[in-house]
Amino acid sequence: MAKVKKAPRPKAQTPKGFRDYFGHEVRERTEMLSKIAGVYHRYGFEALESSAVETVEALGKFLPDVDRPNEGVFAWQDEDDNWMALRYDLTAPLARVYAEHRNDLPLPYRRFAMGPVWRNEKPGPGRYRQFYQCDADTVGAASVAADAEICAMLADCLEELGIPRGDYLIRVNNRKVLNGVLTSVTRGAEQNDIASMSAEGRRAYRDFEMQGLQNDEILDSILRQLDKFDKVGAEGVRHLLTGGRHDASGAFIDGVNLSDEMADGFIAFLQAKRETNAETLARLREILAHSAVGLEGVDELAEIADLLAAQGYGPDRIVIDPSVVRGLGYYTGPVFEAELTFEILDEKGRKRQFGSVAGGGRYDDLVKRFTGQVVPATGVSIGVDRLLAALREKGRVGGSETGPVVVTVMDRDRMADYQAMVAELRQAGIRAEVYLGNPKNFGNQLKYADKRHSPVAVIEGGDEKARGVVQIKDLILGAKIAENASLEEWKERPSQYEVARGDLVAKVREILEGQA
Amino acid sequence: MAKVKKAPRPKAQTPKGFRDYFGHEVRERTEMLSKIAGVYHRYGFEALESSAVETVEALGKFLPDVDRPNEGVFAWQDEDDNWMALRYDLTAPLARVYAEHRNDLPLPYRRFAMGPVWRNEKPGPGRYRQFYQCDADTVGAASVAADAEICAMLADCLEELGIPRGDYLIRVNNRKVLNGVLTSVTRGAEQNDIASMSAEGRRAYRDFEMQGLQNDEILDSILRQLDKFDKVGAEGVRHLLTGGRHDASGAFIDGVNLSDEMADGFIAFLQAKRETNAETLARLREILAHSAVGLEGVDELAEIADLLAAQGYGPDRIVIDPSVVRGLGYYTGPVFEAELTFEILDEKGRKRQFGSVAGGGRYDDLVKRFTGQVVPATGVSIGVDRLLAALREKGRVGGSETGPVVVTVMDRDRMADYQAMVAELRQAGIRAEVYLGNPKNFGNQLKYADKRHSPVAVIEGGDEKARGVVQIKDLILGAKIAENASLEEWKERPSQYEVARGDLVAKVREILEGQA
Repeated sequence: MAKVKKAPRPKAQTPKGFRDYFGHEVRERTEMLSKIAGVYHRYGFEALESSAVETVEALGKFLPDVDRPNEGVFAWQDEDDNWMALRYDLTAPLARVYAEHRNDLPLPYRRFAMGPVWRNEKPGPGRYRQFYQCDADTVGAASVAADAEICAMLADCLEELGIPRGDYLIRVNNRKVLNGVLTSVTRGAEQNDIASMSAEGRRAYRDFEMQGLQNDEILDSILRQLDKFDKVGAEGVRHLLTGGRHDASGAFIDGVNLSDEMADGFIAFLQAKRETNAETLARLREILAHSAVGLEGVDELAEIADLLAAQGYGPDRIVIDPSVVRGLGYYTGPVFEAELTFEILDEKGRKRQFGSVAGGGRYDDLVKRFTGQVVPATGVSIGVDRLLAALREKGRVGGSETGPVVVTVMDRDRMADYQAMVAELRQAGIRAEVYLGNPKNFGNQLKYADKRHSPVAVIEGGDEKARGVVQIKDLILGAKIAENASLEEWKERPSQYEVARGDLVAKVREILEGQA
Repeated sequence: MAKVKKAPRPKAQTPKGFRDYFGHEVRERTEMLSKIAGVYHRYGFEALESSAVETVEALGKFLPDVDRPNEGVFAWQDEDDNWMALRYDLTAPLARVYAEHRNDLPLPYRRFAMGPVWRNEKPGPGRYRQFYQCDADTVGAASVAADAEICAMLADCLEELGIPRGDYLIRVNNRKVLNGVLTSVTRGAEQNDIASMSAEGRRAYRDFEMQGLQNDEILDSILRQLDKFDKVGAEGVRHLLTGGRHDASGAFIDGVNLSDEMADGFIAFLQAKRETNAETLARLREILAHSAVGLEGVDELAEIADLLAAQGYGPDRIVIDPSVVRGLGYYTGPVFEAELTFEILDEKGRKRQFGSVAGGGRYDDLVKRFTGQVVPATGVSIGVDRLLAALREKGRVGGSETGPVVVTVMDRDRMADYQAMVAELRQAGIRAEVYLGNPKNFGNQLKYADKRHSPVAVIEGGDEKARGVVQIKDLILGAKIAENASLEEWKERPSQYEVARGDLVAKVREILEGQA
């Protein structure tokens, strides 16, 4: 009878850039996502779970590097030689799903999605090739009321998770405003008086401005530099827009080679934020006086601010800020970013703000690829791992982890007795288990209980069995006494109790309640 | 400035064998998994989420077809030409995780895992290439108490989900018993009197029996035929073990070409179940009188039955049944299967039992591949989609789906007013949304509310605004009246109310409570 040849032992490790999540890591994320899902649901959004695998052609165009459609994703060929890939984000699959099922879905379609995405990028510290995203999008609503709603929902999500008002800020900008600056700056100010044009004249001039503005590599590259404003400041961006600069590591980063005058135009825009939304809007109208598309964007920002104010979301929570850029080329209207404003210490012990945990915006052209029809859409993506890290930082998740009650095994022939004890405890809703390792060494059983963070251990040897009693050890109190033996009050308190077998559940519950 | 060339439109469809899940499908599964996770947690199991991607060498040996390690999975090469693959199940990754992290994990390690797995197999009706599994395993516990615990936990899971006692049955067998039958039948009865042997003699004879028993293709193929007993019955299995048989479609299925006498031996074993566990065990001892490994398996089954009885799980819930085989070659001890015993109508309208929804067993050799050391392990995998289908069948999930309250838009310039209304409703915990489509056609707004299964629509036109009131439509009642206009009692009941704007939330809540 044939045998399989002996192969060398495989290595027990995840592929490079992947990791495992254990116990409380999984539970904390699940709980966080469940709270966010609750808010999304209250706003009328419906869950969607699309397949993890998509055809490369369905994903292709939305990859960060448009020249190399297979780069950046994990891809393979199926039995018919078609290229498949793991999804890169949750937005491209939404566009595919909406195009595929549009006849059955309500219009507008509000959906949320949460799950892993995969990126074939160089892994680094804290940068994995598989990570969670948590998105909400509205497809088929052209009104900026849809964008305002998503900003309000994002604020509600953060507060639902326990991030207090004042510790977060949602900053809103508009890609149209940016486009207006781009055309004004790169094509020279044409001294049109947009304000005095007819509606028709404005529209025609807007279309003229938008010609060649999308899918333009130089403009995309300008966007990416502007996006670094938060990180490198005005001077840094100026260098990146002109001749280039040295980064923190000393490496030289090429610039876009704009003129100083052009760079000044962009910097003025990035710094257009004022004390109030009204002042910021006025300043933007000044800068964009000669751009139809720019002024359209300012009008939208004004409308968003009004809508949010009517719902009670003031600029202390959601504010207009022209320095928000969002690098992705596919945004077409409002863009927004949520940042946490409380300070943490970075790896070098310096104080810094926690920073961005979510972002999104309007992308009206994503469904069009499939159907040929423009379908307006807007949405937000929450960075699950960063937000979870923030909640840990604020003590909103985590903290002390309580393990199960451990019933020890004093006599391996009486396993049935011990199993009956845990069954009683579990039926009373108490997390409990029997020690299932080799019971020979009792010390190992207590070490196990310690490793499991068990609050209580139960012991029933032959003597206890004969007398109809059990020993119950309060392990939390025991640890405190061991740690701090000088505290007389604790020394006097017993950490082990002998109770009748019939009182097992009641006594364990009493101890657990005392520990809570 | 360079432009991207226009590509033909991509097709909006999932790759073959993949699908999307919408709204209540996602929610029902999430709720089911959350309840199961609660039971697993109460039993002391800890969550584990391993990466979706593994090296092919880490998965390899556990694929169903050992000769072709890359078959059956979705695989690709990474930048260093190493083969990666999507996980095929949750057991192989557990073995890798345990081997990798064994110094940090408690021993025994109880873990649960839930998530998608991927199989590169031919898709068919109801057979997808991505589906959920939900597993619990105990690693490092040699005692059959670990197997008994998993069976009890499985029963608790089913009851927690609302499947009543009597509607499910967990059947337990032991691969050692099967191995005993295999050696007795295929090597001829050697007329050893195992019962009278010394412990040492038994062990030696056991080792002799086990020689060549694992990784044996013919034995694996016999196992697969025995596994079909539930489906094709004793006569069907007899043909599959001997000359072959025609299946329902008329196709001929090759047999294993055993002698009739050998086949009889297997059939006798499959039919060894008696009225009580004690009688079944006695019958097995008779059949296996000449097999040391077989009698060891019977002893384990007896111990499991005792442990379960002590915890209150009688044979009405968990029963010893020698006809449970479980095709997978890697099981080494107890095996179990949960089936739902209530009847459903199949696609042809015939009554049949719902069937298997979970299964598992002991697999002591899985970690050894990585470390060289045998690590005992046992676990169960719940078929998430089948169990969800069963719960829908029993009316335990699904039912009427209630959508959000829809605030209609009568005047698009007053969007801020409507947004303020939904904000109030949401703050009161009521699911609500503003209609965000084109508001021109009011009929479309009501059609939208209908498609969303909205319970209530809110209307505030210019007249209502001036009078400080809103109109609130009870859409559920409205639909009932429309459906059944002859019912006088409903005709007399109003389905639309005019209330003061300030009473909006209170009135909506009152209507929702009346509908519930």
